[in-house]
Amino acid sequence: MERTRMRWTKYYLPTFKETPSDAEIPSHKLMLRAGLIRKLTAGVYTFLPLGFRVLKKIETIVREEMDRIGCQEVLMPILHPSELYKESGRFQHFGPELFKLHDRRNRLFALGPTHEEVITDMARSELKSYRQLPQCHYQILTKFRDEIRPRFGVMRAREFIMKDAYSFHTSEESLDEIYEKMAGAYRRILDRCGLSNVMVEADAGKIGGDINHEFVVLAQEGESEIFSCSCGYAANDERAESLGRPAEVKEPVLDTPQKIKTPGQKTVEEVTAFLGAKPSQLVKTLLYKTSNKTVAALIGGDRTLSETKFSKIVGDPMIEPLSDEEIFELTGAEVGYSGPVGLPKDTMIIADTLLEEFQGMIVGANETDAHLRGVKMGRDFTPNASANISRARAGDRCPRCEKGTLSVQRGVELGHIFKLGTKYSESMGATYLDDDGKERPFIMGCYGFGVSRTVAAAIEQHHDEKGIIWPSSITPMHVLVLPVNIADAQTRNTAEMLYEDLRGAGFDVLLDDRDLRPGYKFKDADLIGIPLRITLGERNLKKGMIEIYYRREDRSELVRKKDVIHTIQRFYEPDQ
Amino acid sequence: MERTRMRWTKYYLPTFKETPSDAEIPSHKLMLRAGLIRKLTAGVYTFLPLGFRVLKKIETIVREEMDRIGCQEVLMPILHPSELYKESGRFQHFGPELFKLHDRRNRLFALGPTHEEVITDMARSELKSYRQLPQCHYQILTKFRDEIRPRFGVMRAREFIMKDAYSFHTSEESLDEIYEKMAGAYRRILDRCGLSNVMVEADAGKIGGDINHEFVVLAQEGESEIFSCSCGYAANDERAESLGRPAEVKEPVLDTPQKIKTPGQKTVEEVTAFLGAKPSQLVKTLLYKTSNKTVAALIGGDRTLSETKFSKIVGDPMIEPLSDEEIFELTGAEVGYSGPVGLPKDTMIIADTLLEEFQGMIVGANETDAHLRGVKMGRDFTPNASANISRARAGDRCPRCEKGTLSVQRGVELGHIFKLGTKYSESMGATYLDDDGKERPFIMGCYGFGVSRTVAAAIEQHHDEKGIIWPSSITPMHVLVLPVNIADAQTRNTAEMLYEDLRGAGFDVLLDDRDLRPGYKFKDADLIGIPLRITLGERNLKKGMIEIYYRREDRSELVRKKDVIHTIQRFYEPDQ
Repeated sequence: MERTRMRWTKYYLPTFKETPSDAEIPSHKLMLRAGLIRKLTAGVYTFLPLGFRVLKKIETIVREEMDRIGCQEVLMPILHPSELYKESGRFQHFGPELFKLHDRRNRLFALGPTHEEVITDMARSELKSYRQLPQCHYQILTKFRDEIRPRFGVMRAREFIMKDAYSFHTSEESLDEIYEKMAGAYRRILDRCGLSNVMVEADAGKIGGDINHEFVVLAQEGESEIFSCSCGYAANDERAESLGRPAEVKEPVLDTPQKIKTPGQKTVEEVTAFLGAKPSQLVKTLLYKTSNKTVAALIGGDRTLSETKFSKIVGDPMIEPLSDEEIFELTGAEVGYSGPVGLPKDTMIIADTLLEEFQGMIVGANETDAHLRGVKMGRDFTPNASANISRARAGDRCPRCEKGTLSVQRGVELGHIFKLGTKYSESMGATYLDDDGKERPFIMGCYGFGVSRTVAAAIEQHHDEKGIIWPSSITPMHVLVLPVNIADAQTRNTAEMLYEDLRGAGFDVLLDDRDLRPGYKFKDADLIGIPLRITLGERNLKKGMIEIYYRREDRSELVRKKDVIHTIQRFYEPDQ
Repeated sequence: MERTRMRWTKYYLPTFKETPSDAEIPSHKLMLRAGLIRKLTAGVYTFLPLGFRVLKKIETIVREEMDRIGCQEVLMPILHPSELYKESGRFQHFGPELFKLHDRRNRLFALGPTHEEVITDMARSELKSYRQLPQCHYQILTKFRDEIRPRFGVMRAREFIMKDAYSFHTSEESLDEIYEKMAGAYRRILDRCGLSNVMVEADAGKIGGDINHEFVVLAQEGESEIFSCSCGYAANDERAESLGRPAEVKEPVLDTPQKIKTPGQKTVEEVTAFLGAKPSQLVKTLLYKTSNKTVAALIGGDRTLSETKFSKIVGDPMIEPLSDEEIFELTGAEVGYSGPVGLPKDTMIIADTLLEEFQGMIVGANETDAHLRGVKMGRDFTPNASANISRARAGDRCPRCEKGTLSVQRGVELGHIFKLGTKYSESMGATYLDDDGKERPFIMGCYGFGVSRTVAAAIEQHHDEKGIIWPSSITPMHVLVLPVNIADAQTRNTAEMLYEDLRGAGFDVLLDDRDLRPGYKFKDADLIGIPLRITLGERNLKKGMIEIYYRREDRSELVRKKDVIHTIQRFYEPDQ
């Protein structure tokens, strides 16, 4: 990237100090306040000049790391013929999340959410022989998903920039090799961007395939919850399993279930308090419907259902909860009194694996104002399946080492890599000729990385109450030169001289040449978060000294005029 | 851009020698054959690795020149709320060329064809004071236009990459200043890309405003025709005017128009041959309709109507010719016999300015098989308006110096810059406060440059029958190392050594390490058009010599092994 220098008075960098009313998380607020982005409409943003510079620096790091592992850059279209999605089956799967449009000849297109279909279509007509494999291609391109609830600024936008890569192989070993290289590249990208991160097992969502990992940047207000154990196990909340923990009090099994009046007691808290029991003695029955059946999810009273895991077990991504009326119709009771005993025969029951540790259970009686005690699974009701459908919790026992306990962190998902296997090549008939002349489907991998989202994630991890604190490798400008009093001739001259010299030395420089109160300029400086601020004050200058302020450490040092450049060079050396 | 090196056996660079059946012009054929692009669907292309590299090099040059003139890079969205187009009036104006779609909440969007509306919307909420002006922003982004006839590969695509810039001013003088700077930047971009070009006056089309210029790269099979005079006048065919040329023979005016039987004589050629007259004695009457009226265009028999000029005069971009039936209904005669005398009163007549030089005229009689001779304009019929509606022709007199003659060249339009004035700011209510506290609409300019199209234009200007000849500044690779016989150890070792050393010296290198017949490799080398080819042959190597082949000059030279790098450095010096 070309080095740049800008004067604030000429630069389009509109800051403001009010907290934007529709922004919930720090990065969204700060990106608006620091003049990085502006909203055009829900989930659709413009990157202003300063924000664009961060985006470009991230792009450059991503590009260098992709090139380094031999992945070749291409540029695929945004307009995708819908026929391709019908072949892969994802037209249905994406549903309303796919933006669709007709062209002037009434042909249906989708705006690319990812490019598995497009690249598989190209592979089937271009890659004919095992000799051409493996291939790994990537692109950095705007993607589109019509999110039901766009929010958090560029974090969950409907139009966003993603790096996506696709690989084609003749063997699982070859896929494993690229998968590992890609994971390494992702690690390096995040490390180079200055972002603490973890790689976790995750859910394959709308992409598919068996094995997949997410790269999560740690941040207190991140959307994702991740569970990890000292043994090395790490998974996100959609995927993490647990062995639960020993229940303090077990509910005894009774000879036959005993019906108890629980008038007006509906929630777990109410029922257990009323009965003097623990939540771990009670089992919740949550009722859902698919397109053709009703399904009951049974989980412990102290657990939360994972809809992701549950809908995967049920095999229907469109699963939704029954309404209060539908519950009444099915169970004959109000909400809060549903239970597994005596449900209609055609209601499918899925029990969480953690219920296997239960002895007796307290459940709803399917009768308003009543519960059953001492219920035994397998005797009083029989689930159709047992599966892990509850969410893990901090303190649970690790499912891998079976000894450690899981701890929880929050973060932002930036990367997601997948071993797709032959999911797309088989459904789309994409084959090559093997060395024995046999036609075989490609073995594929795909690798996504959120580029515009990284800008927000970096701020989530690096900010304080005053504003952004950019990691040095992706800061939009290296140095902010801040003359305290622009009217003073010596101050102005020194500022101009530094402005020239710093750019000559290879730094991006912003000169705050605005004729404003110093307090106002300092507040803006803290807000936009450039790592180094050179403060030019009359008194220091008279002594031949210049103040360098380190934003992250909130620390100043006075250096001699002639040492300024060298000091800055030393600061940025690790990023060169 | 990072320097790169690639081995052909690992690189995705699929060439072929057959001429693609659906490609009409050289650049389209060569981009497919040289593995630069692949078609996904009509007017929608993927850039493969080699093509992508050219695109990126052009982007970098464009970016550097925009930054140099102080234009600030931003990134606006592709999804545009349709309300903005209703405000500007362009929803109608673009018509079916605008891709439209509904989101999941049934809100209507357009895919951005350009961004006047989006940036004007931002300006009206962000730029409040004259103190913030002027501003000039640009972006490099995929644009969408649903062309009625997508063709010529990326030359006239439905999805393409454009650099678009927008400027906001308080005065015409300030606009003029940026307009001149932008014109200078465009010149430098094209010069740096190695493309001979001319700046011409043009038509404002769907963008609007009064003054605009196109930048046309000369190419024999270019779509645009441009007219120029040694006095400096230059305009494209939609805009060029002319003073015509002295007619060799003038048709005399008769006392009253004389009706002559011209059975079966319909075309200009037939009628003039039949009457022993010259085309310059005859006047053609072409009948069109708008949404609410019929309009006749009168032009000389040796001239062609410019529909662009004509529809602009009529003030309706949707103007279309009458059908044969409609002509019969209007004139009572078959096609070929229409004339201006005796047309229904409510038919508007527009006469080309060149008709002012006519004395008498031969015109259709509005009666099948009959024409009128000796007709006088102003006596026998009176046009509603006189305007330049015919196309200029090579050899016409220059409208500016009135002495020189116009000559014609062909080319590809790459840039188009516009002084918009207040067209968008007034229709969209985008104002700022002037220094006297008065609200005023922004004065605007906009500046487009076709980035993906430049790849094709460069090939149109630089190719021969064997393939592409890349200008050195935008070549995807600087050097092709071609070992004639990869099986020979000395050849292979030298190739590997050069491959390393050249990249170390800062060049992009492609090594043709394929084990193929030399003839095949040489043909591919000519096709992909890298300026320098290093040919490693056993006989030369034994003598310590290496052949450098200059693609453009079709010339080889033998240099000593140790001089290779230096020779290549000298060749690329001008681009550094």
